[in-house]
This record gives sequence, C-alpha cells and structure tokens, in this order.
Amino acid sequence: MPADSLASWNDGKARSAILAFVERVSRPGGPDFVPEEERIAVFDNDGTLWSEMPVPVQALFLRDRLRELAPQHPDWQTTDPYRAMLAGDNRGVLASGLAGITQLVMSTHAGMTTDEFADIVRGWLSRARHPGSGQPYTRMVYQPMLELLAYLRANGFTLFIVSGGGIEFMRVFAEQTYGVPPHRVVGSSNVTHFEMRGARPVLLRDPKLEFFDDKAAKPVAINKFIGRRPIACFGNSDGDHEMLLWTTEGRPDGRQGFGLLLHHTDGEREFAYDREHVVSGHLDAALDDAPTRGWTVVDMKQDWKRVYPN
Amino acid sequence: MPADSLASWNDGKARSAILAFVERVSRPGGPDFVPEEERIAVFDNDGTLWSEMPVPVQALFLRDRLRELAPQHPDWQTTDPYRAMLAGDNRGVLASGLAGITQLVMSTHAGMTTDEFADIVRGWLSRARHPGSGQPYTRMVYQPMLELLAYLRANGFTLFIVSGGGIEFMRVFAEQTYGVPPHRVVGSSNVTHFEMRGARPVLLRDPKLEFFDDKAAKPVAINKFIGRRPIACFGNSDGDHEMLLWTTEGRPDGRQGFGLLLHHTDGEREFAYDREHVVSGHLDAALDDAPTRGWTVVDMKQDWKRVYPN
Repeated sequence: MPADSLASWNDGKARSAILAFVERVSRPGGPDFVPEEERIAVFDNDGTLWSEMPVPVQALFLRDRLRELAPQHPDWQTTDPYRAMLAGDNRGVLASGLAGITQLVMSTHAGMTTDEFADIVRGWLSRARHPGSGQPYTRMVYQPMLELLAYLRANGFTLFIVSGGGIEFMRVFAEQTYGVPPHRVVGSSNVTHFEMRGARPVLLRDPKLEFFDDKAAKPVAINKFIGRRPIACFGNSDGDHEMLLWTTEGRPDGRQGFGLLLHHTDGEREFAYDREHVVSGHLDAALDDAPTRGWTVVDMKQDWKRVYPN
Repeated sequence: MPADSLASWNDGKARSAILAFVERVSRPGGPDFVPEEERIAVFDNDGTLWSEMPVPVQALFLRDRLRELAPQHPDWQTTDPYRAMLAGDNRGVLASGLAGITQLVMSTHAGMTTDEFADIVRGWLSRARHPGSGQPYTRMVYQPMLELLAYLRANGFTLFIVSGGGIEFMRVFAEQTYGVPPHRVVGSSNVTHFEMRGARPVLLRDPKLEFFDDKAAKPVAINKFIGRRPIACFGNSDGDHEMLLWTTEGRPDGRQGFGLLLHHTDGEREFAYDREHVVSGHLDAALDDAPTRGWTVVDMKQDWKRVYPN
C-alpha cells in the first residue's frame, strides 16, 4: 500500500516510524518479517481513536440515561453520587470515588438483557450530539487514526480494540466506525447470566462489575481475548502503559514490537492535556518511559494535518 | 463450494441438513441470506472435534503432569484427590467432586507464566500418544468434522471453538489442527495477573478458577468473546444445551439458527455413549430436546464413512 495513504499525517518522525515498522514486519524474507496471522495490533479507544474530552463519551451516555431514569427514582435528587451527576457537579462525582462511579454505572448499564442494552446504546448514539461540534459522537473520531487503521489492515494486520470502555457499549458502533467486528473489541464488562424467559433465552446484565479493562488488566485481557502477543500497540494514557510494555519489552519470540502514544498537544483543534489531567487520559509515567522504551510519541498539533473527518 | 467436499459424510438426513442450511444462508438475495460478518459458527471441542474417550485429553495431560511433579510432593501419595489420580483410581477422583478436580487442575495448570504453560502443553502434545491408536492426540480429530470446518470456512463462515476445555490448553494446537486462531478459541480459564520481572513483563497463572465454560456459561462466553449470536452451533453433550438454545430459539433478528448434536453411536470405530455417561460427554436432556427444537442429530455410526484421518 502506498505510503501516502496516511494523507492526514505530516511528514515527520511519527509518520516515518509507522511506515518503517510496517515495512520491516511485512517484507517477506526480511529479518523482522512477521507472518500475517501474528500481525496483531491493539488500540485503546478513548483519546486514541476518538475524543475523550471534555469527558469520555460513555460518561455522557451514563448522564443522559440517568436523567431518563430519574423520574422513577426521586431519592436520586438528594443522594450522592446520583445528585452530583444529575446536577452536572463533576467534582462531586469524582469525590464519590470508584465506588460511587461504579454505582452510577450499575444503575444505568444493568438490569436489562444484552439485546435491550445494545438497542439503548444504538438509540442514544443516533440522537446524541457533541456539545462543541454538534456532530454525532461517532464522527468525533480521529481522521489520521482511521487512515492508520486502514493502512495496517491493508498490510495484513488484524486489529483489536482494548479499552477501559464498556465492551458492549463499544461493540454497538466499532464495526461501522472502525471496521473492527464485535469479537475483536475488548473492554470492561458486567457480569451477565443466562436464563430462559419462557421459550426465549436471554442474557441478563447484572449490576456487578466483572472486569475493569485498564492498566495491568489490559495485558491480562489481551492474553484472554487474543491469546497472542500484539506486535503493535497504540495508546494515549497511563492506562495503556502495561499493554505497551507487554508489546515491546522482553518478548520470548525476540521480536521488536512497536509502541505508540498519542500526546494531546492541540488545544485549538482538539484538547491539550497530559500529566495534570485526572480522569480518562492521564498521561505521565508512560510519557516518561517512552524515550527509554523506544515508543513513538505523536505530537498531535505537529504531526496531524487535521483531527476529524470532514 | 461443491457439496462433495463433505466426502466422509454418508448421504443422509444429517448431511442434507448441513448442505441445505449453508445454501439457505449464503445465497445472495435469498430470504434467509446472512451477511458474511454475521455467519458465526461455534463448535464444542471435546467429543465434537476430537475424541474425549476414554477420558478427555486434558485429563491425561493433567495426570502426566501430576506424575512429573509428584517427586516434589511426597504427601500426594497418601492424600486424595492426588493419591487417586496418581493411582489411576478414576472412581476416587470423581468421588472428590468438583472441588477435588479443581484442586488437581490448579496443582498442575498454575504457578507458571502463560508462556511457560504454553511450552509445557506444546511439549506434552508432541510426546503423548493415545493408548488405543498410538497416534498423537491431535490426530484423534474427526475427519468429517475437519471437512465440515473447511466447508463452512469456504462458504464465508467465521468459526469459533467454545469448549469446557482450558482456553490456554486448546490455543496451543487449535490453529494448526483446526485452522482456528487463538482469538477465536473460547474456554475455561484461570485467573492471571501481570507483573514485571525486572525488565520483562509476564503474566502469571494463579491457582484460581476464573471461568468454567460449560452449560449456561457457554452463551455467557459467546456474548463476551464473540459479541454476536451464532447462526450455527455444533455440540455433543448436555454441556452444549444452552448454547444450542441461544443459537436457535427466540432470536430477536428472527433468523433460523442451525443446531447440530453428534450422537456417539459407534462402539466399534470410536465409542458409544450418551445418557449413562457421567463425565465429559453426558448427553440426555439435549438429545430429548433435539426433535422439538429442530436440531440435527448425527448418528456417527450411520452418518460417517470414517471417523479419523488416515
């Protein structure tokens, strides 16, 4: 595939590193050749494939769903963390900690069948609009990353998403938006259980966290869902630190994996955030580690001609 | 693909039902057409793709590994369930119940890295031989089922294994044996955790069962790993009952899924067992359910020209 398929990337170190890596592993007979079935690439989602600012998209889904359900729960108006979330008091929500946030997730993401949940997400995505751009959230994806997905796919890579986002939330849009089918989307999950409703089998989403796919859990999830070490890993935060290490360090096959971090440096076209940012997208230790590990750091302001599709 | 690619299947109801199903869902413009990305087929492994008799292959791996480790554990000679397993006292092993069997699994399948475990399994598979045939276990696969896998693949299906067997055990041989890559093998799992050993990241297999992929857990696993309802399901025991129901009953998309049960009727060429068999391969309620649900039952003695590859 011609290199100019990365049309939204400026010439520079990041683009060159991507091209050199793909050339290196896909040249038959070359010393670093990797057979196609082992050309596995993993991508974080929030802040790597689509915008996670001002807050991650799934948090906006949660807020809207909480508002919809609120009339049936009058106590939410006065009880934290519900009160804080309904009032748009982000500081109050964060103060409720992981336990409070989990409670909000379970009140909005559980108690229905898996099919019903997918319908709820699908409906919301079709109606909701980003407050800044007025676009559907599935248009708030990064054009240079869409080109990168296509470029890797054209060079025989199999692409997986490995994200802290909800697995059943992402699967609703990942195939159409990124060309990644449901079985190659890995994320956080609820416990579910099977039951027969008369003649109809259903899976119920229980209000219990099964797996939180972040930090050291990401290599665990990669091993469980993919069963093979990725040869390339793309992330943007400390939540991706361990899966970057898993991809590039001390591999028993002796291969040199490729690691890449998006650095959100563009306060004009998108958002600028890294070390001081506390929610999804905190980037500190992984950024310090990048030079030592040989990870490519994308300076989004410098390296990208544009951020979003037209 | 020509129908005669199912060369080891006798003409009969089972073969005809398979051909009719594949024709129905893959004919463009037909009323039952299913797009390729939704042509998902799931297969049980033990007793469906390879023999599970006289005992499942992974139990033989467990026994051999227990023997290897026994010199370091003198107490195993006198303590059940270890004593029973080492003495070949199958009745004693079964009497130890699920708790005892889990203890045996954890003593032999945990405490090493995921890479080390894969090497152990690979080594064992290369050395071990089936007591009856003298063949490696990866040759004790069913030739008609290999043809069926190839036939479905050639007709645009994506194949998954969904088995009670260990996910990291099966992944060692599934790609070479069945053409199913690791990320499309689903099974029972241990808890694992990530740690850095100096500069080297590893995943450790902890002595704790994470997921037992059997019965009502199979639709749960299908939803988690595949994220899409299969259009075809192939099994041989009551352990596959719920995933058959999940495939064929009350689908919200209104499609007619295909269910198939292998009935082990051939005591001469393989083994004959169903309702009275208590270990892996117990087939009772699902067999009773087959006529009502429209599931195809394969009479292995009648329907198969041969059982194993040459």
